[in-house]
Amino acid sequence: MRLMEEMVIKLRNKLAEFGVQKGSSILIAYSGGKDSSVLLDFLSVLNNELEMQLGVAYINHNLRGNESIEEESFVRNNVIANYNLPLYVKVAQSGSLESQKGESVESAARKLRYDFFKEIVEKYNYKYIATAHNFNDRIETFFINILRGGGSETLNSIPAVNGKIIRPLLDITREEIENYIHTNHISFIEDSSNQTNLYKRNIIRHDIVPALHTVSSNMVSSFETVFKHIDEDTDYIKSCAEVAFKEIIRFKWGNVTGIDRIAFNTLHPAIRSRVIKKLFDVYGEISGLNQGLINALVTQNRIKLVKGRLYIESKGKFLWFYKVNNKIDITCTIDTIPFKNELYHIDVCDTGYDYYPVFNSLFFPLTIETINENDEIMLAKGRTNIVKRLGERGIPKNIALQGCIIRDSNKTIVVYCCGPFFEAVNKSDKTSLYYLKTISSNTGLQTSVQYT
Amino acid sequence: MRLMEEMVIKLRNKLAEFGVQKGSSILIAYSGGKDSSVLLDFLSVLNNELEMQLGVAYINHNLRGNESIEEESFVRNNVIANYNLPLYVKVAQSGSLESQKGESVESAARKLRYDFFKEIVEKYNYKYIATAHNFNDRIETFFINILRGGGSETLNSIPAVNGKIIRPLLDITREEIENYIHTNHISFIEDSSNQTNLYKRNIIRHDIVPALHTVSSNMVSSFETVFKHIDEDTDYIKSCAEVAFKEIIRFKWGNVTGIDRIAFNTLHPAIRSRVIKKLFDVYGEISGLNQGLINALVTQNRIKLVKGRLYIESKGKFLWFYKVNNKIDITCTIDTIPFKNELYHIDVCDTGYDYYPVFNSLFFPLTIETINENDEIMLAKGRTNIVKRLGERGIPKNIALQGCIIRDSNKTIVVYCCGPFFEAVNKSDKTSLYYLKTISSNTGLQTSVQYT
Repeated sequence: MRLMEEMVIKLRNKLAEFGVQKGSSILIAYSGGKDSSVLLDFLSVLNNELEMQLGVAYINHNLRGNESIEEESFVRNNVIANYNLPLYVKVAQSGSLESQKGESVESAARKLRYDFFKEIVEKYNYKYIATAHNFNDRIETFFINILRGGGSETLNSIPAVNGKIIRPLLDITREEIENYIHTNHISFIEDSSNQTNLYKRNIIRHDIVPALHTVSSNMVSSFETVFKHIDEDTDYIKSCAEVAFKEIIRFKWGNVTGIDRIAFNTLHPAIRSRVIKKLFDVYGEISGLNQGLINALVTQNRIKLVKGRLYIESKGKFLWFYKVNNKIDITCTIDTIPFKNELYHIDVCDTGYDYYPVFNSLFFPLTIETINENDEIMLAKGRTNIVKRLGERGIPKNIALQGCIIRDSNKTIVVYCCGPFFEAVNKSDKTSLYYLKTISSNTGLQTSVQYT
Repeated sequence: MRLMEEMVIKLRNKLAEFGVQKGSSILIAYSGGKDSSVLLDFLSVLNNELEMQLGVAYINHNLRGNESIEEESFVRNNVIANYNLPLYVKVAQSGSLESQKGESVESAARKLRYDFFKEIVEKYNYKYIATAHNFNDRIETFFINILRGGGSETLNSIPAVNGKIIRPLLDITREEIENYIHTNHISFIEDSSNQTNLYKRNIIRHDIVPALHTVSSNMVSSFETVFKHIDEDTDYIKSCAEVAFKEIIRFKWGNVTGIDRIAFNTLHPAIRSRVIKKLFDVYGEISGLNQGLINALVTQNRIKLVKGRLYIESKGKFLWFYKVNNKIDITCTIDTIPFKNELYHIDVCDTGYDYYPVFNSLFFPLTIETINENDEIMLAKGRTNIVKRLGERGIPKNIALQGCIIRDSNKTIVVYCCGPFFEAVNKSDKTSLYYLKTISSNTGLQTSVQYT
């Protein structure tokens, strides 16, 4: 009985830790299995006191014919008759889990669940989604990620809070859950999701964890301590990596990121791998990120790699990350310039030190276009290929071709820019700023980091 | 056969990684068991090529009567007849392992072994000690330290190199060792050390690791990756903690360390716990260092703790770490001062702003003594108790009593100092520095960090 009280205190504290307040609305992710039955019961009991708005979401994965029908009927009866709570049921189409390409059934089922929860939460305005992950799930996931060769972050990878999701049972062991079920005569059914494709997890659950328990009766509190250490360490490294990430970025332009190669190479390996991971995250890529790649980025002088839709290229002191298929393709026009502009009419302008190109007038409207390979601009030193000129500044061709030009209706190019690099036939500040601003507002790109 | 070659390449690379050069002398820690028999054979074979000076050290733990005698005779025969190498044997006194207080038999045996290796290495001038720890030992130690609730550092805690100790087999699995034994017909005996008090390790070895292997056939390479991540992370955090450690120390005086409490409290928990561990290491204490203590240091306003011989005390903006039983107890005399000193003869000295105390002359010799509780110094504002005055500066009484005074033979105290805090009846710089220097050279303590 003392144990039961301890567990209830732990659960209350967890809710307080999550900031769950009187009157909060919580959607309970319910499978009918032991864990979520305890979660449902506990939150219902606490409801007398906290006056929460509880609801229950259930997915019938429809994997086992008649059994699935019985399961759903148990759930409906239990939630409505025993707990008198609103129930949201989704019946998965038969075979929907098998049809996903390149995904395990387990992860397809997870996606289905969370999509459904999200839908209900948005429709009925729930503040939280409570799931029934427990402490043993954490230990099992620890082993699964060890066997995947995961980084430290993955060793304690079920967070107690993640957006709207809260996990009140995360510090409760399966033994405590069994105990709660026994003491409070909780009804449950064998969780069908536990039967699907859980070969690895079952060996860990039924062989490895019990064996560890025979080695040490303090196993649970030892894991608690280990998880705490891991969390502290990874949180610290993460915060350092975020600082480093900002420090090494020298160029940001749409889908292009240019990082300082020397600064990157001198990062500690622990930080370097996380900075790279963050870059991959920015580009939504997860494949191809491994130690071999990171080593290549550090040790190889000339790099040109394609990972999914992400290009990585070294040039000069930069390491570039970009997508070519996100080329800016906005064309818009500038009908007039709202102030006197030297570019309206330019004659030979020999100052004795430098000269500007000879052309007599700009023909409006001007247009903003993306740079083409053969585009040339007439600068002080003469006619210059823009892609080549950007290349001299360390910008690879693929990225240069994501830059913009402004061209008059006589096809004369008067401005080009690519990220922080900007050049015009006339650099009168007012005019330059006007052009950059116009390009920015028409392309959504940041253009004014630095002038060259 | 391909596997054998792979293993030999791995081993060669390991030796190269350790910097083992042609002609190096290596003492092989040999038990007669499988692991060290493979180590012995491999190094002997390689010897044709590397022309090393090999020797073999063996301890007869003398735990099992006749069996121990047979074991020793096998070892003597094998090392001398088969390998023709010098053999150093130590026969442990019967019962010597059980007699150690507060130690497990395993760790007592380890101490005995390493003491013996050290003795032989020093006597016969070996450059390296090679031990036969293998990759499975790393995995097993990982689990043992998980079950101890260890920090990240302990999860990969068998270093490949540690001082003179090298571990060439550290990346070789037990399976590869078995394979080597089989292929090369290596003689061995069942390692007696494997039979002693290894209950925990045996469950891990025979139940848990094989179960993990059934879950993932890539277990070994997964662990390699996990260990690499852990090493990188802990190495990074360690280097950050070393920087932080230096930054928060404001006071260092013999066995006294004063750290900046605000700076300490704002450290990230991951760094804070390591800084505290480093402080405990400095004082040679290992007991009492736990999360509860660290929390107390951060959250409690007034702290006075004793951990072993280490005192921890908060006062003002300092957190003090010290040993009281390391009180400075040096008494020495100063017969003369090698330059004109205002303290030779001081009259009333009223500058209109301040005054110095009235005494007519110093009586040589002066003596350096430790501060006593009732010691007083005559300063501008009058007669002052020194311990109280140090207390006002945030120095606890126990630490103040580790400070020094200089007293003349008429019992007048003219100087006191405790770490960076220094005060004299006359602060003429030349005199102050002379006194500090004299105290330093006579007590071995750093005295001149700052004046007050």
